[in-house]
Amino acid sequence: MASSTGDTEKLPKKIYDAQVATLREELVQLQVELKKTDFKIVLILAGVDGAGRGDAINTLMGWLDPRGVETIALQQPTDEERERPLMWRFWRGLPTSGRIGIFVGSWYTETLREEARSKKALAELDHELRRIRHFERLLSDNGTLVVKVWFHLSKAEQGRRLRAHLAHADTAWRVTDEQQRAHRIYNRLATTAEHILGETDRPGAHWDRIEAADPRARNVNFAGMLVRRFKEHHRRYTNKKHVSPTKPKRVVALRPDGRKRLLSLELDRKLSSKAYEAKREKWLGRLNRAVRRARDAKRSIVFVFEGQDAAGKGGAIRRLTGAIDARDYRVVPVAKPTDEEKAHHYLWRFWRQIPRDGFVAIFDRSWYGRVLVERVEGFCHPHEWRRAFEEINDFEEQLIDHGSIVVKFWLQVSKDEQLERFRAREETPYKQHKINDEDWRNRAQWSAYETAVGDMLALTDTAPAPWHLVPANNKRFARFDVLRHACKQITAALDA
Amino acid sequence: MASSTGDTEKLPKKIYDAQVATLREELVQLQVELKKTDFKIVLILAGVDGAGRGDAINTLMGWLDPRGVETIALQQPTDEERERPLMWRFWRGLPTSGRIGIFVGSWYTETLREEARSKKALAELDHELRRIRHFERLLSDNGTLVVKVWFHLSKAEQGRRLRAHLAHADTAWRVTDEQQRAHRIYNRLATTAEHILGETDRPGAHWDRIEAADPRARNVNFAGMLVRRFKEHHRRYTNKKHVSPTKPKRVVALRPDGRKRLLSLELDRKLSSKAYEAKREKWLGRLNRAVRRARDAKRSIVFVFEGQDAAGKGGAIRRLTGAIDARDYRVVPVAKPTDEEKAHHYLWRFWRQIPRDGFVAIFDRSWYGRVLVERVEGFCHPHEWRRAFEEINDFEEQLIDHGSIVVKFWLQVSKDEQLERFRAREETPYKQHKINDEDWRNRAQWSAYETAVGDMLALTDTAPAPWHLVPANNKRFARFDVLRHACKQITAALDA
Repeated sequence: MASSTGDTEKLPKKIYDAQVATLREELVQLQVELKKTDFKIVLILAGVDGAGRGDAINTLMGWLDPRGVETIALQQPTDEERERPLMWRFWRGLPTSGRIGIFVGSWYTETLREEARSKKALAELDHELRRIRHFERLLSDNGTLVVKVWFHLSKAEQGRRLRAHLAHADTAWRVTDEQQRAHRIYNRLATTAEHILGETDRPGAHWDRIEAADPRARNVNFAGMLVRRFKEHHRRYTNKKHVSPTKPKRVVALRPDGRKRLLSLELDRKLSSKAYEAKREKWLGRLNRAVRRARDAKRSIVFVFEGQDAAGKGGAIRRLTGAIDARDYRVVPVAKPTDEEKAHHYLWRFWRQIPRDGFVAIFDRSWYGRVLVERVEGFCHPHEWRRAFEEINDFEEQLIDHGSIVVKFWLQVSKDEQLERFRAREETPYKQHKINDEDWRNRAQWSAYETAVGDMLALTDTAPAPWHLVPANNKRFARFDVLRHACKQITAALDA
Repeated sequence: MASSTGDTEKLPKKIYDAQVATLREELVQLQVELKKTDFKIVLILAGVDGAGRGDAINTLMGWLDPRGVETIALQQPTDEERERPLMWRFWRGLPTSGRIGIFVGSWYTETLREEARSKKALAELDHELRRIRHFERLLSDNGTLVVKVWFHLSKAEQGRRLRAHLAHADTAWRVTDEQQRAHRIYNRLATTAEHILGETDRPGAHWDRIEAADPRARNVNFAGMLVRRFKEHHRRYTNKKHVSPTKPKRVVALRPDGRKRLLSLELDRKLSSKAYEAKREKWLGRLNRAVRRARDAKRSIVFVFEGQDAAGKGGAIRRLTGAIDARDYRVVPVAKPTDEEKAHHYLWRFWRQIPRDGFVAIFDRSWYGRVLVERVEGFCHPHEWRRAFEEINDFEEQLIDHGSIVVKFWLQVSKDEQLERFRAREETPYKQHKINDEDWRNRAQWSAYETAVGDMLALTDTAPAPWHLVPANNKRFARFDVLRHACKQITAALDA
């Protein structure tokens, strides 16, 4: 753990001014260079109450070019935030590549506070800390420079400051009730903080401690730390061989069993028009009731539709939405990421679309693109799609921990059936926009996709978020199967 | 008011299918063409309960390419929405240029419901309708195609539908309590709707009525209406002479009195270092109390800082934020709009940053760029900046109506003082990024900017959102003046 030595002597103004002049040059240079990179800086400032976090940020902001930096000030969660998994609000605030995001209040704020004050059970704290470690690793794996700074102040110094402020009518406003309370339980807070800092000090997410007794020294150490961390990170990041990912010659299965499950599907299961008509309204009614029950229980539902081109995802989604109040759901068609989305972690655009409690989001393609098209086409590096399985499982676990119901469908058609549908699309004027060269190219990679899908099924088929495989050669059967399974899984989750 | 004739005979399936095939081609074509334009389509669907709005949207969505369209489903406002002006949630949902946004639930939903059920005073309704008309005109002035469709259904037909659904166990779920209530008060709702439709049927925001008794006819008429409206709009839009705006040869004042006010400022007012030190903490304390009072009263504060280059906006903002809890405020530096921002109305990016109740937003430059740099540099057409004065006044009025406190500063330095500051910036290494050719170019236009500022002061200095002019040749005086005026205006607003 890095640490700066506390200095009881104050930094003289003259030396401070000279250091500041140099630091400001370095900070401006940092921002110029950062802008050219494709990573971002996430800066978290925590510390002992009264150590001057606000002042230090204010000072730092004065030294930086404001156009490349943003502060993310977090107060009590809003209802839109409470109605989504814990980390949603932090994802929401992440800066884009080339920028600095300073979190004033972070994923540590509640953890640091609650533990000391309510003696939260250790198990629960451990769970939170695991979540934090995972999140920071995900950021750092993605190239983000995570700078975490802890301002230290002794109990004696904290007391001196409070008394000095309270002694003058002009400055007494600077002391809040919360600060006085924090002073009284200084030792307990310090013990907790020590534990939390220790448990979250990891490669790629180090804690830097800065002595905050002298504001001048604190400010220059703080800014200096940022500059130093950036330089190290920039060097390491630049020295890494940044070979552009290339299309793999062959897609080799990680888990051949997944593909077996796919191949054993009986694709030609049929449903007659009559049988479909007879059952449809009843099952739509069931789905409608299930969704309303979920809404009343404030549980959100996340549908994931994956499948080959022309497997019938769109049609199945439209049948499904026929049973849901238009105000309660949102269909999210997933295409190529926009520029803004590309300047974020690949999961960012999906976090953005996570529904509020009681609402339904239907993803027409999804985060699984990372382990399907991106893997097969070589749009990302092998280490990126390899770690995606765990990242995705963790993402879905967060949804489920929060109370969401995650329903995942893979629609499978045979190669012949796809060909027939492609041809029909080419022949029907209003369907021509649905077919392009890319579809034909994907088709040529049939076997590679089968392998990738197999791995996906084997590695992300979790108990709370299982994959349902839909034989989709017959559209009626597929639509009915989707409808019926959706009812069943939602009802089971609500009854559990 | 456009209107389609109701047809009691049902559209035969065969004819329907043929019409659908043509319509789908036209819709796909529409989307291809829309994508090439720089306008968007905002589609609002309202109508009698049970007329099948959900079905119709579902059907239309099935015919459109989902990647170019989004539905904005609005439920009860969330607290993040309630804590901002009424229209915030609608601004939030607007699509970008080249896309279609379908509002399921719109700015009409509450208006249509509340009036009928609680007999809201006519004055209040009129105010809401004025707000709606203004918003739709703003959209339409900006080139947006606003399509508003009303689904009509007679009381008898509505009753027949409810009874038919209720008669079968499989379909009874389609009837909600709300629909049954709506049937009972059909006439009252119809009268209200008639009034509202009449008052909001304006050029650029017409209501189209569609008879919804026959679902097939309804669907094709609905989609056909969209196609027709698009074609008309596209033709009119394309035929308009789209001359790129050019830099005006001379900036001619609309209101010479505004400039006089600027010129009469005594720019050299000074404050000694001693006097400043003596007063600063006291006034920071006052500001801190005022901001906490506002927070407790759930009033947000919007600071606007405008001024010439190097007038000291950044410094004044940093002194101000020294008194505010870092979690309570956000500084919004306004630079060139991003691509996403450019694909929206110019006010969109500011609406985005409107603070929640109790919070503070500090704009370092603002929406006034429209009537300053955009006017002087010819970045927008004269008719655009001319109508901006009213748009801006209306925008600020919405903030104030909601309870926000709007504090606007213009920092004015003399031409000589600016020159000295520019030179100092060029000579200090860490300040060099703050000065570029553009600053020198703006300086060359000193008089043109004076004229534009004068018009701005004359036309947007409203009683609830006045401009405070700050003589800024002396930095200490300027900072102190900003601090003192902020305290005074906030306190006065809270005491009012």
